[in-house]
Amino acid sequence: MSPTAALITASFCRRVLKQSYFLHRHHRRRLHSVIEYPLTHPIYTIWASNTSLGKTLVSAGLSMSFLSSSSAPFNSKRFVYVKPVQTGFPDDSDSRLVYRKFSEFFTYKPLPFSVFASNSVLKASSPAANAVLRNGMAGGSLRTEAFGAEVIEKGGNFGGGLENVHWYEERKLRGSESNETESFPASQIVCKTMYAWKEAVSPHLAAEREEAIVGDAEVLHMLKRCLGNGLIGASSNTEDLEVMCVIETAGGVASPGPSGSLQCDLYRNSCGDGRLGGISGTISAYESLKLRGYDVAAVIFEDHGLVNEVPLLSYFRNRVPVFVLPSIPTDMSDDLMSWFDKSQMIFTSLKDIMLSNFQKRMQRLHDMPKKACDIFWWPFTQHKLVPEEKVTVIDSRCGENFAVHKSCNWISQQFDACASWWTQGPDANLQIELARDMGYTAARYGHVMFPENVYEPALELAEILLEGVGKGWASRVYFSDNGSTAVEIALKMAFRKFLSDNKVLLDLVNADVNGRCLDLKVLALQGSYHGDTLGAMEAQAPSPYTGFLQQPWYRGRGLFLDPPTVSMSDDIWEVALPQKMQSGKSGHECLSFNSRDEIFKRSRDGSDLASLYASFILQELHSLSDSNGLSHIGALIIEPVIQGAGGMQMIDPLYQRILVRECKYRKIPVIFDEVFTGFWRLGRESAAEMLYCQPDIACFAKLMTGGIIPLAVTLASDAVFEAFTGDSKLKALLHGHSYSAHAMGCAAAVKSVKWFKDSNTNMNLISESRSLQELWDAALVSQISLLPAVHRVVALGTLCAIELLAEGSNAGYASTYASSLLKNLREDGIFMRPLGNVIYMMCGPCTSPDICRSLLEKVYDRIQEFGLHKDESAVFAA
Amino acid sequence: MSPTAALITASFCRRVLKQSYFLHRHHRRRLHSVIEYPLTHPIYTIWASNTSLGKTLVSAGLSMSFLSSSSAPFNSKRFVYVKPVQTGFPDDSDSRLVYRKFSEFFTYKPLPFSVFASNSVLKASSPAANAVLRNGMAGGSLRTEAFGAEVIEKGGNFGGGLENVHWYEERKLRGSESNETESFPASQIVCKTMYAWKEAVSPHLAAEREEAIVGDAEVLHMLKRCLGNGLIGASSNTEDLEVMCVIETAGGVASPGPSGSLQCDLYRNSCGDGRLGGISGTISAYESLKLRGYDVAAVIFEDHGLVNEVPLLSYFRNRVPVFVLPSIPTDMSDDLMSWFDKSQMIFTSLKDIMLSNFQKRMQRLHDMPKKACDIFWWPFTQHKLVPEEKVTVIDSRCGENFAVHKSCNWISQQFDACASWWTQGPDANLQIELARDMGYTAARYGHVMFPENVYEPALELAEILLEGVGKGWASRVYFSDNGSTAVEIALKMAFRKFLSDNKVLLDLVNADVNGRCLDLKVLALQGSYHGDTLGAMEAQAPSPYTGFLQQPWYRGRGLFLDPPTVSMSDDIWEVALPQKMQSGKSGHECLSFNSRDEIFKRSRDGSDLASLYASFILQELHSLSDSNGLSHIGALIIEPVIQGAGGMQMIDPLYQRILVRECKYRKIPVIFDEVFTGFWRLGRESAAEMLYCQPDIACFAKLMTGGIIPLAVTLASDAVFEAFTGDSKLKALLHGHSYSAHAMGCAAAVKSVKWFKDSNTNMNLISESRSLQELWDAALVSQISLLPAVHRVVALGTLCAIELLAEGSNAGYASTYASSLLKNLREDGIFMRPLGNVIYMMCGPCTSPDICRSLLEKVYDRIQEFGLHKDESAVFAA
Repeated sequence: MSPTAALITASFCRRVLKQSYFLHRHHRRRLHSVIEYPLTHPIYTIWASNTSLGKTLVSAGLSMSFLSSSSAPFNSKRFVYVKPVQTGFPDDSDSRLVYRKFSEFFTYKPLPFSVFASNSVLKASSPAANAVLRNGMAGGSLRTEAFGAEVIEKGGNFGGGLENVHWYEERKLRGSESNETESFPASQIVCKTMYAWKEAVSPHLAAEREEAIVGDAEVLHMLKRCLGNGLIGASSNTEDLEVMCVIETAGGVASPGPSGSLQCDLYRNSCGDGRLGGISGTISAYESLKLRGYDVAAVIFEDHGLVNEVPLLSYFRNRVPVFVLPSIPTDMSDDLMSWFDKSQMIFTSLKDIMLSNFQKRMQRLHDMPKKACDIFWWPFTQHKLVPEEKVTVIDSRCGENFAVHKSCNWISQQFDACASWWTQGPDANLQIELARDMGYTAARYGHVMFPENVYEPALELAEILLEGVGKGWASRVYFSDNGSTAVEIALKMAFRKFLSDNKVLLDLVNADVNGRCLDLKVLALQGSYHGDTLGAMEAQAPSPYTGFLQQPWYRGRGLFLDPPTVSMSDDIWEVALPQKMQSGKSGHECLSFNSRDEIFKRSRDGSDLASLYASFILQELHSLSDSNGLSHIGALIIEPVIQGAGGMQMIDPLYQRILVRECKYRKIPVIFDEVFTGFWRLGRESAAEMLYCQPDIACFAKLMTGGIIPLAVTLASDAVFEAFTGDSKLKALLHGHSYSAHAMGCAAAVKSVKWFKDSNTNMNLISESRSLQELWDAALVSQISLLPAVHRVVALGTLCAIELLAEGSNAGYASTYASSLLKNLREDGIFMRPLGNVIYMMCGPCTSPDICRSLLEKVYDRIQEFGLHKDESAVFAA
Repeated sequence: MSPTAALITASFCRRVLKQSYFLHRHHRRRLHSVIEYPLTHPIYTIWASNTSLGKTLVSAGLSMSFLSSSSAPFNSKRFVYVKPVQTGFPDDSDSRLVYRKFSEFFTYKPLPFSVFASNSVLKASSPAANAVLRNGMAGGSLRTEAFGAEVIEKGGNFGGGLENVHWYEERKLRGSESNETESFPASQIVCKTMYAWKEAVSPHLAAEREEAIVGDAEVLHMLKRCLGNGLIGASSNTEDLEVMCVIETAGGVASPGPSGSLQCDLYRNSCGDGRLGGISGTISAYESLKLRGYDVAAVIFEDHGLVNEVPLLSYFRNRVPVFVLPSIPTDMSDDLMSWFDKSQMIFTSLKDIMLSNFQKRMQRLHDMPKKACDIFWWPFTQHKLVPEEKVTVIDSRCGENFAVHKSCNWISQQFDACASWWTQGPDANLQIELARDMGYTAARYGHVMFPENVYEPALELAEILLEGVGKGWASRVYFSDNGSTAVEIALKMAFRKFLSDNKVLLDLVNADVNGRCLDLKVLALQGSYHGDTLGAMEAQAPSPYTGFLQQPWYRGRGLFLDPPTVSMSDDIWEVALPQKMQSGKSGHECLSFNSRDEIFKRSRDGSDLASLYASFILQELHSLSDSNGLSHIGALIIEPVIQGAGGMQMIDPLYQRILVRECKYRKIPVIFDEVFTGFWRLGRESAAEMLYCQPDIACFAKLMTGGIIPLAVTLASDAVFEAFTGDSKLKALLHGHSYSAHAMGCAAAVKSVKWFKDSNTNMNLISESRSLQELWDAALVSQISLLPAVHRVVALGTLCAIELLAEGSNAGYASTYASSLLKNLREDGIFMRPLGNVIYMMCGPCTSPDICRSLLEKVYDRIQEFGLHKDESAVFAA
């Protein structure tokens, strides 16, 4: 009942840095340079659910079948075996076992060419290093052949208790048909142990007891070097070199690595695998790997004659190939040569599947851009302007970063600075948490019907929202799918509330069957954006999105006010007044500020500027009510503090506060569209907190689910809800979508909303002020604002927006002015998209300020460069 | 490195029937009666990742701490231990071990009251049964105490090779303070083995080798009986009885049960758990359980002094309590009494957590309806009409069925016949597949940006759609969030196409800055529904959804035709012509049909009715173009074959075909809204196939993702796409949503679209005709159509809609006419919602016709009853 099974997953690069969060929260890993990973040859990782010999034998068998397989003549091959973490050393050494079993098998069945074999150990704990120095490698004799050598070199302790131990052995294995003047270079098998500890216990224990600890980042860095070295070896004509790499993990899939991180999390960044265990262990380990986004290429297990493969085959059918190896001799004196011989066909099939999977994957990655151009219809995209080579192939995402496939067959890491759109949220740890929750919720609930029903994820989310972003004013939660639907629902709520507060108008409506005599308008701001469905579009002022060719039904059913904006220019925070207001200015108004915080101060309510704002707002409201008796403002809708799609404009919070005050005074329901601004985007859970006022209705979406799955809510006060109660269903709010309050979206939101506001999981949180710490280095932001190419900067919460100085067709939404700048930044590992001549970066609420600083530095450098080139071309033009 | 760990999950009922799909596809389980499950006392299941002794000792320890805990005086307690599947019997018997260890411990440390202890074995394979008959129970001596008895009864072989073996032993354990005249009943420990096999191998192997196979349904049925018997025992005053049940599984979490189904799938229906294994095994098993929707209450493992708990504690922190038991003595002669004694504190804490978790869960289930009424704002719901007691608490979903919590503390199964809304899709197997895929996709991709990018799930889905529902006409895929957004996008596409085909109009638009001189309308049908956002609403005729109080901006921008409908009334399929057409009828038109298939025949194109349809359509089109020169029909939009929200009306397919033909002839772009009808809802992958014509644009959502997560697409032909290409971004289609082509939605759709159309996974598929077999029993449908209370029936694909005969306020959307009928059907285990006086059932594309028949039978009975009562009240009234 405990067969030896092995399971191999395809190599894929997630990201190379991983925060070992739970155990090493104090070790913040930093992103210093662009991290890249080769995809020029297959790399697989072998995992197991126990510590048996099986996976090492699978590695050895693979090395034999790979190096002996026939291929193009004169191509030499290299098999690289890496054991990142070895305990029980030197008594146990899997890399040595692979090295020796291969050598023995070569002697048993020589290949028709020569092979260089080597094995090395790079670093070890003192006890392990001393054991090697004292006794050499234990167990059996080592015959160094011609050209063979055994080198032990003990280096200095380099901190953490691990020592450099360049233990090295090699031999040349002469092939059956080889002669002294071989016309092509020999093949190679390169075996490496990266880190070794003496005690035969779990790595995290050995590391602790032998005081020789190594962090996750170091392990991954070393692993990359080992795999890289596997490529550029002694052989000069690397083009003809065929390489295959295998990484063997220690223990089981979820066994802790040396830092205590689970191995399946540690290597999520790197490579593939195979593994060993009973039926239950095999399936569970498979599922744990899938839950971390691994592709499993094959499962291998040992035949114990118990027909165990029946349920395994049944489970894995159509999922992954299953191989059955002959029973491994248990007699310790058996040299396993005849077992390897018997197993060769299996190993060859396994190797073929691994190689062909790799080929297929490469082919697919290569073909994807063309296929995408052929069959996708991207939103907001002029396809004519996107040639194949501009398409980004995203192989995976880990936390805030993409793994992007480049045509040169590298996987490169890019920080996703815009997300789709502005959903940037989870760090790597939250992503894995969400993955598990998504699996659980799909299994537990799938999707269930919402109206008149209740289920845990929906109820818990509603409770959390009313205790969070809705605290103090909201009493009801209405679920929908996206920001646009949330806004349409909000407008329906507001209009009904307005009518029920205005009995005269309500009677007018009830008297008129069609009720179309009234013209209900929204009050909104120029530059605002509330979504792309018609109802949401009607609440925005005319823009490139609203032309007749885009939406022939758009009329613009609002009174659109031109608001004052705020931004930093040349290191000074300043208010920019709209044209109309400038003429009404008395000259006493203070328009510049010493700091961003000053802008948000409530004391500004008594300023001259406040009076100016109030008088202009009243003037506009009167202009409408004068025009005719049937037009009425039925709702105010604003994006609090920052207008997103309108170009990342910060509106003077004083102006918005006065606007809300005036509307509340007139019983015009107030809607806050927090789809973009909500959930810490601007440094507070709700942007309303920064305005010091509360809406009657508010819309949330995007980041609410941690940015992984669509879900929206419209929160409402009790007074709004009451406008819909009555005896008839026809008085109810008749708006809904199939996936109203779908369980997975609610579960993702429950996890994320909690995660972001818990200082145990979000280290950016300042609990006392219920705000995020400053993420964007203030000095760097100031410097950027001083660059000649920069018009203005707004850095607030997770957002840093920069408007480039541009004129004419270079400005505005359709401008491609920033494209060369963004292209360079992608080379630097930052994925951004522009809003015309406005560029911006966005991080998650948990992203460390160190990462933000590193991004900002790159942006600073590239804008400086961009400005110089621009000036140069200007000089040339002049 | 291989500690003994135990992991306990909270009990929850998924569904009690499970198709053991992969291995036993021929065994279709049937749903005959309402399946219910008690929640009156805690039931936990204990799982392990290996076969060690640990989990049995945990069970024994729990029994001791439960029965010895102090509680209200005079309350007696019952601990029920069930071992559903035992191999290696009678040498190994875990239920006997629990029975004996408890008894021994009672003697070692007597309780202050008496306890009845019993152990029984219900069924066994012949070899196991014979071994018991020959030798009695092996291993050690059994001293039957006072009142003790040992009974062996061998019953007949009842098929499948399993025999009834009522082996039974009991004893009364006298407490330290007990006397002959105890004033309250003794407590009890009831141990049971349900099925036993002789060979000590995996159950599926033992079952096969001993020719004693038992199906999953039988195991679950028996389990329910055993747990039920745990309640209603000898004790008369069951009210004061405190009960705790523990179920111990065999082997590991994903070990096969006797049928070969994985145990974690088998018991998904029933109860809780605990388990044993190393770090990796423990974590992986935990994750496998979560992936099946289990709640894990606790993890227990054995202290091996290896500080293994550090990574475990770190992993499980904030997830689940972890307990560490003292090391279990390995000396076989140790009776473990002092170990149990040492461990009592741990077991007591564990028991307390289990009991308090159960209490919390009960409290939460009890509170949910009130909380829901207080803070939810349900769509399409008049809250005043939904008192607390009408709220359904959905504890989980498994395949097509809900597990519903009833106030009497039962979990009851209800077939979800409407889904939310009309997303009914996955069977239990697909749900688990989707759960795993959702976890994988969240881990691998989270959400990534779509425009100008490509990633596997989005690309694969686009490929599959163009090879499936878009085959032969579509070349582009536009992603959005729901049917309503898909329709808004479709309208934008169609209007642009129409303008670019009509140069004169385009010039007019380009000349007019606002372009508002033109009035573009849609051609649509009365009774159609295309979504709740304003743009989609504008394409539908005035209805209860569109009044001024619902949406003051609605104008109804369409020419709305009144279409002929088809349905079965009194066993005859008949066309009902709209009023207008009846007057134009020549009398030669054939309006009734012998079968449903006849209605879809293309030969009808040459009929008199076809001419009638054509002339009426032309007349309507001319009426518009006459009115003024600026109004134009820019698009046709229809729901092919069936109008959903409009009351499940079947439109004469001939009429729709002619309508499409006439529009195509006039270069009016044709939109099929297949949000409801797509993906096998009507028995074909696309309802367009049934019309024998192709659209220019089509919308899909709902069932596309298997009904678990929101995602929508708008497919378009190349000609439509070309109307948006040009040199400026402003010519592109500027519409998008944050979660465009989100990876999880795409992955769910890839799996589901493939699953539904693969005859290996969808047994309803008739591959030759690419259609589903008839799911609703034709004879029963006919009978229903003959019932006096029924006006018409439409059964097609997965849909069966029934319009009840109703007049006045009993008819129409706001009617509550059907509510008593639906209430009764919920008692029968069918969850339905009405569309006024129209009721309907919907199954998934893979739901077996047997289940559909059983649903239909119940509906028939209830409508008959409903009709009688109605007539009775009519009689009384008269």
